[in-house]
Amino acid sequence: MSADLLAALRAAVGPAQVLTHDAPGADLSAWEQDWRKRAHGRALAVVRPGSTAEVAAVVRACAATGTAIVPQGGNTGLVVGSVPDDTGTQVLLSLSRLNAVRALDAANLTLTVEAGCVLQNLQDIAEKAGFLFPLSLAAEGSCTIGGNLATNAGGTQVLRYGNARDLCLGLEVVTAQGEVWHGLTGLRKDNTGYDLRDLFIGSEGTLGIITAATLKLYPLPAAQLTAWAAVPTLDAAVALLGLAHQHLGAGLTGFEVMGQFALGLVARHMPQLRVPLWQDSPYCVLLENSDSESEEHARGQFERLLETAFEQGWVSDAVVAESLAQAHGLWHIRESIPLAQAEEGLNIKHDISIPVSSIPAFCAETDALLQREIPGVRLVNFGHLGDGNLHYNVQAPAGADAKKFLNGQETRVNTLVFDAVARYHGSISAEHGVGSLKADHLPHYKDPVALGLMRAIKQALDPQHLMNPGRVLSP
Amino acid sequence: MSADLLAALRAAVGPAQVLTHDAPGADLSAWEQDWRKRAHGRALAVVRPGSTAEVAAVVRACAATGTAIVPQGGNTGLVVGSVPDDTGTQVLLSLSRLNAVRALDAANLTLTVEAGCVLQNLQDIAEKAGFLFPLSLAAEGSCTIGGNLATNAGGTQVLRYGNARDLCLGLEVVTAQGEVWHGLTGLRKDNTGYDLRDLFIGSEGTLGIITAATLKLYPLPAAQLTAWAAVPTLDAAVALLGLAHQHLGAGLTGFEVMGQFALGLVARHMPQLRVPLWQDSPYCVLLENSDSESEEHARGQFERLLETAFEQGWVSDAVVAESLAQAHGLWHIRESIPLAQAEEGLNIKHDISIPVSSIPAFCAETDALLQREIPGVRLVNFGHLGDGNLHYNVQAPAGADAKKFLNGQETRVNTLVFDAVARYHGSISAEHGVGSLKADHLPHYKDPVALGLMRAIKQALDPQHLMNPGRVLSP
Repeated sequence: MSADLLAALRAAVGPAQVLTHDAPGADLSAWEQDWRKRAHGRALAVVRPGSTAEVAAVVRACAATGTAIVPQGGNTGLVVGSVPDDTGTQVLLSLSRLNAVRALDAANLTLTVEAGCVLQNLQDIAEKAGFLFPLSLAAEGSCTIGGNLATNAGGTQVLRYGNARDLCLGLEVVTAQGEVWHGLTGLRKDNTGYDLRDLFIGSEGTLGIITAATLKLYPLPAAQLTAWAAVPTLDAAVALLGLAHQHLGAGLTGFEVMGQFALGLVARHMPQLRVPLWQDSPYCVLLENSDSESEEHARGQFERLLETAFEQGWVSDAVVAESLAQAHGLWHIRESIPLAQAEEGLNIKHDISIPVSSIPAFCAETDALLQREIPGVRLVNFGHLGDGNLHYNVQAPAGADAKKFLNGQETRVNTLVFDAVARYHGSISAEHGVGSLKADHLPHYKDPVALGLMRAIKQALDPQHLMNPGRVLSP
Repeated sequence: MSADLLAALRAAVGPAQVLTHDAPGADLSAWEQDWRKRAHGRALAVVRPGSTAEVAAVVRACAATGTAIVPQGGNTGLVVGSVPDDTGTQVLLSLSRLNAVRALDAANLTLTVEAGCVLQNLQDIAEKAGFLFPLSLAAEGSCTIGGNLATNAGGTQVLRYGNARDLCLGLEVVTAQGEVWHGLTGLRKDNTGYDLRDLFIGSEGTLGIITAATLKLYPLPAAQLTAWAAVPTLDAAVALLGLAHQHLGAGLTGFEVMGQFALGLVARHMPQLRVPLWQDSPYCVLLENSDSESEEHARGQFERLLETAFEQGWVSDAVVAESLAQAHGLWHIRESIPLAQAEEGLNIKHDISIPVSSIPAFCAETDALLQREIPGVRLVNFGHLGDGNLHYNVQAPAGADAKKFLNGQETRVNTLVFDAVARYHGSISAEHGVGSLKADHLPHYKDPVALGLMRAIKQALDPQHLMNPGRVLSP
């Protein structure tokens, strides 16, 4: 069986693009280990097709032999969704060679690309043509657009431009039967049937394989200005967000919140970064204003906004970046929190969302709950407040053994946090997806009717359950 | 059977809310006839539930007896999608009594409402609270948000805010089995599984019944300014659109194009409207600039934009509205085209979309083709150029019998236009949906793999095929 399959795969993509463990010196760990090193599987083979037709041929070969397929882009996911299990029976389908830019249509504001294109390359291609492709996230240097779409990636500009789903107009998909859906439309309006595009987006490779996409481009802003403000409470941060929406309209492209402990970790472990305003305030906020006119105009808007916020008592102190370098510096502080946290030791990560209006109450309640349950526990709370998305991470008490803490408390902490999220009508996975890591949680936290609909769709589109099995829906 | 069903329906919603033809003086034509008077069906009963639980009970009663359900909102659809067929066997489920506003969350920028709310009421509620709900279309005085979502309605502000789909964060849905999916999330990020929301949106009631929705609100713009420009060619209109994106960024909330013949009809049939600039130019464009700052600022932006456009030769003449009344007047001209066209006589309507970059070539080719095939035919071409959506309507030659023209030529004209749309990778239904009117066209113009996926999903979620049968997918 497996020999027949390997022969069929080699015929489909060429022998050089089928990697197996029995080759001399073979090391497939780059494909078999996930980004956070939480799982190390073993693939039957790593297959690297170079065209959509080859992807379809691989899927047909697997379907014919009942072989499971795990699609993989840049393998930077955070929920163990793109590595094979440890049975040695799954085919790892890497999309990385499918990386052509098929078209840039300036008048239509669209960019059509293959799944394996690295996100940062697409940002660069857009910018060189005078446009913005606004998807932006920490892994952009190695993640691929196919993976971004398969997981409906979020990032820092969701507030203005939406998630990956909102940035995509059309898809090309290889179905579980190995057929090709040619849905690469560049249309902004198309009401000819069910929204298959958005069904495949965010399905984490469990319904089919995205091989190409038509993406939206935006005009490049004339200026981007960044401000950093100390706020006295989370309520004040939420009020400031509302004011920023009013004053800046669609110019508001970033609104990040950072707790004092999180910023303290950056200050401690990366003293060269010079974190501003964090010492006297429980939270700081980073705001970004993207302006279609000029830097001067953006600065004037920021000044009026911050003046009003001071008067209202929602901001206690603030700085506006004087240069692009300073702006990058402020963003760099925000983006360094995960690393600073890692320096401090292992911790329990959450990627949750809550309606913005409930975030202050959620944090007050959950902070207190965790303190009560685990005295001395430290909360590294930061995130995209503008979209209600918090990375509400839990660090061992000072001086405690972090590994022991993680082993002993992770399940309990997850339950405490997820139950609180449920009470506030939030989501236990805002932007990272479900993968294997959270698949077992869904039956507990997801509406049962929604789960039933999801299972019915999975059964309809992938009746053999060969597409990334065990991800999203547990078996 | 039918007596049992009627008893069950009466038990579900109360006898007063089950209307049948055998009641003395019964006239159900308001529910049985479509907006454009293209079809008049006969319902077994019109059922008007007052709560989501009642909707679910109605669906269960119908499912138990194998009775088809046709859901209806404001019954303003343009593709015969919400009236019963003429067999007298279908239950017409009116959502109009489900019209409560459940919540307005200002800090979260969300509005949660029931399906039967009239669109204009929601616009007003949002505005009174200081926000914008941007969905806007001709039928807004009587269409309902449930229908808007079921058909993924478009309208005039899609360019900036997207279609109905893009304005919705969460849904409450009664499934074909009569279960309730409680998906009324107000979250902007939620990656916990398949995108059921977007699957139900645009499915035209064929997969389940939307009973409530959580909608996005936006800050109210401080000023909205409207300009009217004569352009020498469609190429110039497309170039002006690109320039407007650059200059106005997200401030560009409207970009409508109107052909000379369309404007001439308004000038002839509604002389009181005083159409500007149309006589010396093949096309005029209406631009709207929504500004978060001030009218003065918006005016300055418009002036710079139009100055550049003049220099480039993309605009030959332009006026900027001096007052809100003038702005409304310009929009009123645009919105009067369908009526002026009706005054001129019956015509063949199309609601197509094409990648913006291809619109000039599409129009040149298709105009010439139709002229060749049907000498003297007149083209009422107008639409939302910003989203590539044209209402490319075909009027009988001057002096010809319009009714005879329609009867004799509609199929042929549709084929000519739809084939041209297909050559340019466009859509034969941009914003109106499929309904019954275009269901037979889909197998010819839609990707066969996409159609297969749609049929598999329909079968999975509505295996009895009782939900709005014959719509979207022909039997």
